[in-house]
Amino acid sequence: MQILCLDLEGVLVPELWMEISKATGVDEIGLTTRDIPNYDELMKLRRAAMDRHVIGYRQIKDVLASVVPFDGADDFLNWARSQFQVAILSDTFYEFAMPLMRKLSYPFLLCHHLVIEQDRIVGYRRRQTDPKTKVVQALRSLELTVYASGDSYNDVGMLQSANSGFFFNPPSHVVEDYPDIPVVWNFDELQSNLQRVART
Amino acid sequence: MQILCLDLEGVLVPELWMEISKATGVDEIGLTTRDIPNYDELMKLRRAAMDRHVIGYRQIKDVLASVVPFDGADDFLNWARSQFQVAILSDTFYEFAMPLMRKLSYPFLLCHHLVIEQDRIVGYRRRQTDPKTKVVQALRSLELTVYASGDSYNDVGMLQSANSGFFFNPPSHVVEDYPDIPVVWNFDELQSNLQRVART
Repeated sequence: MQILCLDLEGVLVPELWMEISKATGVDEIGLTTRDIPNYDELMKLRRAAMDRHVIGYRQIKDVLASVVPFDGADDFLNWARSQFQVAILSDTFYEFAMPLMRKLSYPFLLCHHLVIEQDRIVGYRRRQTDPKTKVVQALRSLELTVYASGDSYNDVGMLQSANSGFFFNPPSHVVEDYPDIPVVWNFDELQSNLQRVART
Repeated sequence: MQILCLDLEGVLVPELWMEISKATGVDEIGLTTRDIPNYDELMKLRRAAMDRHVIGYRQIKDVLASVVPFDGADDFLNWARSQFQVAILSDTFYEFAMPLMRKLSYPFLLCHHLVIEQDRIVGYRRRQTDPKTKVVQALRSLELTVYASGDSYNDVGMLQSANSGFFFNPPSHVVEDYPDIPVVWNFDELQSNLQRVART
């Protein structure tokens, strides 16, 4: 009855807004909550930039179609799915992530939806606040043991609510802010740590 | 944010105890809760039969290695995973199901564990009572829309707690006992009904 909750971007695949920013050459699209802590503000900026540069959803889809999972992600995920039930918990959008999910044989993914009207991204629907933490809590309420790994601030609640949680290759300021959360730097280290905690 | 909860045996794959019974020729192993309503009693009978006929876990594993998903199950599941996040909710055991899960590219599965000692099945650990219903309730508490399909009595709670639930190719007595639950008879019908309810 062991579940592994994994963050998506920064763990299995690159940051998708960053890929869109690089491909379109529009810097504002690549800003993150590190630059603009308020997520609504950040999305407004990104949307304004997309409007100004006439970047529609179809163009973004084309960019994302060429994004591939990190080296080793598929192998790690195949191993993980043979040992745990894997749920990917992400703050990205299904409209961005599904082509990548196909490349990873459709793991179970909980994230958010964009609102798209006539090729324009006009908004988004976040499922609930602090969604990753709430999923881990719901899974644990079902008598499931939950392990988790993610790389950033929006993973902290998930990592802290899990039976065991590991930062995966996090930026140094994240480690400094949460020194009590153990850190792994690559898939091999994550695998050996999961084997260790799942045995105990 | 749409989840599809699917029963396993009778929907995607054959009844596994029945396959073990057929392969070993031991009828008691193939008894079901229809014959012995009390699950603990049923498992005691099966275990006594396995002991009497010296049927160990390794032999059962060999039998189950040759079981394949129903015709069309893989195609249906691939379609479903491109449209929904699929969770398989089953009252089988991981020790029985995982080889079949590999054949289906490891969908997310919640079920139970057997306790095996030196090749003998000595018991089992059910995660909680009424597990399928509780999973649906937990998913809905996360603001997720849940569709569900299954073939028998242990699916009724899941079908009734879901936003929409469908019996899949059920025995006639199940339909008679729950006339209010809509019925589909094959993957095509399930797919068209899911498309219909997911649009609304």
